[in-house]
This record gives sequence, structure tokens and C-alpha cells, in this order.
Amino acid sequence: MKVLDKKSDIRSEIEDARRSGKKIGFVPTMGFLHQGHISLIRRAKEDGCFTIVSIFVNPLQFRPGEDFHRYPRDTNRDLSMLESESVDAVFTPSTEEMYKKPHLTEVSLSNISEKLEGAFRPGHFRGVCTVVTKLFNIVKPDRAYFGWKDAQQLIIIKKMVSDLDFNIEIIPAPTVRDPDGLAASSRNTYLSLQERKRALVLSRALQKIKEMVEFQQITDAAALIECGKEIINSENVELQYLEAVELENLEPVHTIKKNTGVLGAIKVGNVRLIDNIIWE
Amino acid sequence: MKVLDKKSDIRSEIEDARRSGKKIGFVPTMGFLHQGHISLIRRAKEDGCFTIVSIFVNPLQFRPGEDFHRYPRDTNRDLSMLESESVDAVFTPSTEEMYKKPHLTEVSLSNISEKLEGAFRPGHFRGVCTVVTKLFNIVKPDRAYFGWKDAQQLIIIKKMVSDLDFNIEIIPAPTVRDPDGLAASSRNTYLSLQERKRALVLSRALQKIKEMVEFQQITDAAALIECGKEIINSENVELQYLEAVELENLEPVHTIKKNTGVLGAIKVGNVRLIDNIIWE
Repeated sequence: MKVLDKKSDIRSEIEDARRSGKKIGFVPTMGFLHQGHISLIRRAKEDGCFTIVSIFVNPLQFRPGEDFHRYPRDTNRDLSMLESESVDAVFTPSTEEMYKKPHLTEVSLSNISEKLEGAFRPGHFRGVCTVVTKLFNIVKPDRAYFGWKDAQQLIIIKKMVSDLDFNIEIIPAPTVRDPDGLAASSRNTYLSLQERKRALVLSRALQKIKEMVEFQQITDAAALIECGKEIINSENVELQYLEAVELENLEPVHTIKKNTGVLGAIKVGNVRLIDNIIWE
Repeated sequence: MKVLDKKSDIRSEIEDARRSGKKIGFVPTMGFLHQGHISLIRRAKEDGCFTIVSIFVNPLQFRPGEDFHRYPRDTNRDLSMLESESVDAVFTPSTEEMYKKPHLTEVSLSNISEKLEGAFRPGHFRGVCTVVTKLFNIVKPDRAYFGWKDAQQLIIIKKMVSDLDFNIEIIPAPTVRDPDGLAASSRNTYLSLQERKRALVLSRALQKIKEMVEFQQITDAAALIECGKEIINSENVELQYLEAVELENLEPVHTIKKNTGVLGAIKVGNVRLIDNIIWE
């Protein structure tokens, strides 16, 4: 497994693989890997791709006051996990390697970037889209893998790829959950045991909604959201949003059907967590 | 010469050329070709490239009230010029082919996009950067050719390519002038004979500045700009700006030296014209 921190080195490594006829599969991450990332990597390996993982905590997608500086980092642990998964190459650029000063160019999407997460984290998706565009231009993958856990990010990246004519297939993969139901996230490490227990209310509320839809055939969004909010508000957490939306454009829907989802965010103490349930 | 209006068709045409070992040279245009465009195409051919020209009047770079609808178009004339130059492929997409609705994604640069042309045409360079990103992703050229006539555009595209990690070499080429000194531009067709005579004052002022710098060794920007403005204001045209700037970042300079330029814009009746002189 090659571990490279220079754009030019990862480019020539990938160029060699491409010349040997391999498809390039790309899993961009911010490191502190968990089973969600691993599921994406395994999917890329199963697809027969030369599999590249990037580890880069992107300052551009954090606002001042967010958790950029305390975001968990453990590159040695990450690399040994990636080695076990037989990843072909890992790109671990420094901030200086990624962003030559002054960095002036930004990629942004109107409308779908401003809803839900975007309303609570203005500029977040502009940072995400900018770094993903850069990584796509460096790696030039045939396929890139993103998890449904960050549903809005996945939807925005798909739209960006279509709007900007990237010739890249975006492959979504299901959210991976810990045995207690909490969606796998690098940020779960912030939670104390007590906070983790409280945090479970979000996945419990979503699970309840899923059951109401699938076993009781209740599809009225207002009723489902009201029930979900009641569950969340019964716990000592701050509900930021819980909305039923069209997956394509994140517009609110009145009825749960194919291609809709319920997306939510809570704060447990200082820790923001997101989760969702989707009907693909 | 292949003339193709579908992204998928031009992609596979270029893929074939690339597989045969050729470098891809790209000249993006809005059509109504003139000798400036032809010089870019000849440069690409001299470089031994498989040469692609795109013809697309990009609505995103015109503001409401600008000349999008009356922008000159003559595809048959363009194609016969391109045929004479032995261009390999021409991409002539429709607006619907380029922009699937809703188009939400934009590429923008802060700072250098807001000066000079940007101050008079807010959003213009956002439209330019967005369409050029799309075209780069479709064509995936090794080299792309841009004229110094649109100096700010060239500088912005170079910066965008660097910031977003496009692996593309941007090749600049000198401004081509008609025998009377007017810089070649598709928009010159808007000028009546009388207006054209008045329009010449811009190239005359720039030529005078060039002579003062190169023969009289006058390098004080304020003195040069004052002299240039005096010449322009002696004619019945509207001076929009005339500024001495650093080429890299378009910041004002006090002294003309290597990597600076004087950029200007005037309005002759309803017709906006730009021109410049640069010291590379």
C-alpha cells in the first residue's frame, strides 16, 4: 500500500494503475476511520477497482468556532486499518499541499446547499464541494463512494458531478450502525457514555418512523415527523431539524414514498450528530 | 473534421484520439471566429495536438440586459474557417445539452473576479469559470489556449486551474490586431464605421503608453495612466477603466515592470470594448 502526501506522486501512481487497465475507485475521507468508511472501501474493492483512500481534514468545510481543531485524527491507526483492507494507495496531503495561498476558487450549489445542514452550517457544503472537486481532479476516479449517513452531502455531490460534467459514477452505500443503533461517525468519539445514551434517541426516532411507514403503512409526513419529534424531545438533547424531503432536491414532501427520506440533526451537549432514513 | 453537439459523442471522439497517443489541445470559443481565435488554433496545431474547438455562447456569463441575444452567431462560416485550419473536432452543444435544468452549481473566484471587468459585469467571471470547468471536464484537454485580449479572463482561468488542481496547461497567446490597430473581437461587428474610428482611441492610448515605457523609460504608472486617460477622453467615447496592475493578482501597481499590464475598457455608443498591453 503506497502512502503519498504529494499531489504529483499520487497522480503518477494512479496513472500507472490506469495504464494497466484498472478502474480507479475513490473513497474520500477525513480520517479517524470507522466501519462506515470500511464498508465503502470494501465496495470499491468488490467492484474490482484500484482503490484510493484520501485522508484530509478539510479546513474549508468548517466554520470558525466549529470543531476543525479538535476533529479526531489518528493517521497510524487509519493506515493500519487501510492496510488490512488491502487498499492500493492512500493520499494524505497536508493543508499546505492542498491549498496554495491565496486560494480564491470555490465551488458552490445554490438551493440544496442552503437547506437542513446548510442552514445550521453556512458555507459548509461550499467547502465540501471545493475540496471534492480538487480531489476528483487529482485522482480522476471512475467511481467515488459516499455513505448515505451524510445524505445531504451525497445528494449535493451527485448534483455537482452532473452539473459540472465530471465523468465519475457516484456510488452510495448504506449507513453503518453500531450494535446500539448509533450511526457510525468519527464524531461519536466526542460523546461521553452518558451522552451516547442520550444520542441514541435520534436513531430510535428514525427507527420508529421506519416501522410506522413499513409496517403500519402510515405515509403522512406531518404525522411521522410529529411522532419523531415527540420521541426526540422526550430526551435531554437539542433537536435542530427533523424533516421529510424529496431526495433529489431536498424539498419538503407531504407523503413518504420512493425517493424520499427523513433527515435529522440533534445536539447532545456540544456534539452535533446527524442521521436519516431513506426510501430509495 | 467531426462536428458533434452531444457531450457523450465528443467524449468518445477525444477518448479515441487520446488512446492513439495524441495530446489534446482545446480552444474554447463563443464562435463568430476571428483571427484571434485562428491564432490560438494554429498554436494548438503547431504543438502537435489533436485540436478541439468548442463553439458555445454561454448564457451564464451574460447579465440580464447584456448582449446575449444579439451576440453574433454564424456557425456555417465558423465551421468552414475551422475546416480550413484542419481542426480535428468541433463541439457545438445547445444550451439544453450544456445545462440540464435545474443547474445549481457555480465556480467562482473571490477578489480577482470582482475587479476591472468584474466591477462592470458582476457575475460574469462566475459564468465563465462555470462553463470552462464543464468544458474542461468534458474535453479533458492536456492544453487549453486563451488569448491575452481577455487578459483578466486568462488570469482568472489560470488561477482557477491551479486552485482546483486541473491537470491542464493554460497556453496564452498574444492579442491579434486588425491593420488599423483595433484588437480582434467578435463584438467589433457591432461597430458602425464611425464608431470604429472612435473605438481606435483605446488601442492608440495603449500604444502611446507602450512607447512611453519602452522608448522613454517612463515607468511611473500614475503618469502613464493620466496620459492614456487624456487621449481616451479627447474622443467621444465613455472610459470605463484604465488601470495599471500586477498580472498575477490584478492589484494596482505604482511602477510598470515585468508581469504588469495596463487594462482598459471603453463604451462606444452601446458597444463595450476591452483592450490591454502587458509586459510578460
